[in-house]
Amino acid sequence: MAIRRIEVRERVMEKNDEIAALVRGRLADHGVTAFNLVSSPGAGKTALLERTLARLGGELAIAVVAGDVQTENDALRISRVTDRLVQAVVTGGACHLDARQVSVALDALDLDVTDLLFIENVGNLVCPASWDLGERAKITLFAVTEGEDKPLKYPKMFEKSSHVVFTKTDLLPYVPFDLDQAVANALTVNPALETFATSALTGAGLEPWYQFLHASVLGVPVSP
Amino acid sequence: MAIRRIEVRERVMEKNDEIAALVRGRLADHGVTAFNLVSSPGAGKTALLERTLARLGGELAIAVVAGDVQTENDALRISRVTDRLVQAVVTGGACHLDARQVSVALDALDLDVTDLLFIENVGNLVCPASWDLGERAKITLFAVTEGEDKPLKYPKMFEKSSHVVFTKTDLLPYVPFDLDQAVANALTVNPALETFATSALTGAGLEPWYQFLHASVLGVPVSP
Repeated sequence: MAIRRIEVRERVMEKNDEIAALVRGRLADHGVTAFNLVSSPGAGKTALLERTLARLGGELAIAVVAGDVQTENDALRISRVTDRLVQAVVTGGACHLDARQVSVALDALDLDVTDLLFIENVGNLVCPASWDLGERAKITLFAVTEGEDKPLKYPKMFEKSSHVVFTKTDLLPYVPFDLDQAVANALTVNPALETFATSALTGAGLEPWYQFLHASVLGVPVSP
Repeated sequence: MAIRRIEVRERVMEKNDEIAALVRGRLADHGVTAFNLVSSPGAGKTALLERTLARLGGELAIAVVAGDVQTENDALRISRVTDRLVQAVVTGGACHLDARQVSVALDALDLDVTDLLFIENVGNLVCPASWDLGERAKITLFAVTEGEDKPLKYPKMFEKSSHVVFTKTDLLPYVPFDLDQAVANALTVNPALETFATSALTGAGLEPWYQFLHASVLGVPVSP
């Protein structure tokens, strides 16, 4: 039975990868840059998106697909800071988004007038690492409240990501967290990772993040 | 193919439940009280266990099975505060422990001289909710850094738990977190939940937790 399980899983993953390739092609045809945001629950994906939409929403046409196990809370929060359509996906128990859900969500968005797409995945450091959604890159958020050893304990997510955004740095004075050690642990798992250190509460450290997004879409830095 | 997936999953879950029943019987035969600790990554399961072993380890014979996706870091940390064997389980990618892993881990522990068993699950608010490990109860840790709406977004874990231990309450002055609202959200999902508000860093709020554990094992409060 173990073998049968693996076969079924492989077929499901193959089908997902096929759909992800179609999503990737569709986004490329429309010139849309897509990032898949992953993290532990409560690391601050929605808060980072609220800030980012408020800062860059005037210059870039940003769309969001917000995934959750239950509720559309995150999509509602994001809708308050943008006039654009925010598409909610409820996985109904699954611990990750899959490419088919993203594909369906894209049908509701006007890709012709979209520059940048954020896919806010389910809060989970394990499952989403295995699922290609057609994104350009996965970006892992890592709250400074979580402990420096997260990259060593959940290596696949950090291996699969291009960037790590440390969040809640305003709490660094109050938590036993060594940011340099956490960065070193992340680089041990994936030496190509680039990192940002941010606080969505105070705004500290967000400018380099905005620059990165702007350059990813337009190839030039954000205007001051 | 969707139907085949569901069939295979049901058979896997049935098999898990059978093994969990055997584990539960084995623990009962030896008079062992077992709790399955679940939470987001970095919510402080290991820190709570370190404190608890230091405080209660002299009065109760406490064993720990520590599960992780990769590394035995948590088991090593806990080993430093107890002379008893701490059994590490590496799931190798899986987002939860299963009953078979716990059953194998128990073979390495001397149940005859064990009063209380903690099973430290993988840091994940989705997957572990579906897997019975033969425990008396699941206990969810909920860090005050995570946001009040976690019970609404991950309801199954809170439905399946008997207790919620709020952690990192020392950070309450620095985070936008309404503890009363979080408790209310948890009770909306599961009105039978009992809660503790704790800080493993300062020790605040831990006495009621120790009392609960002591009474769970011996039926009487802990000695002062």
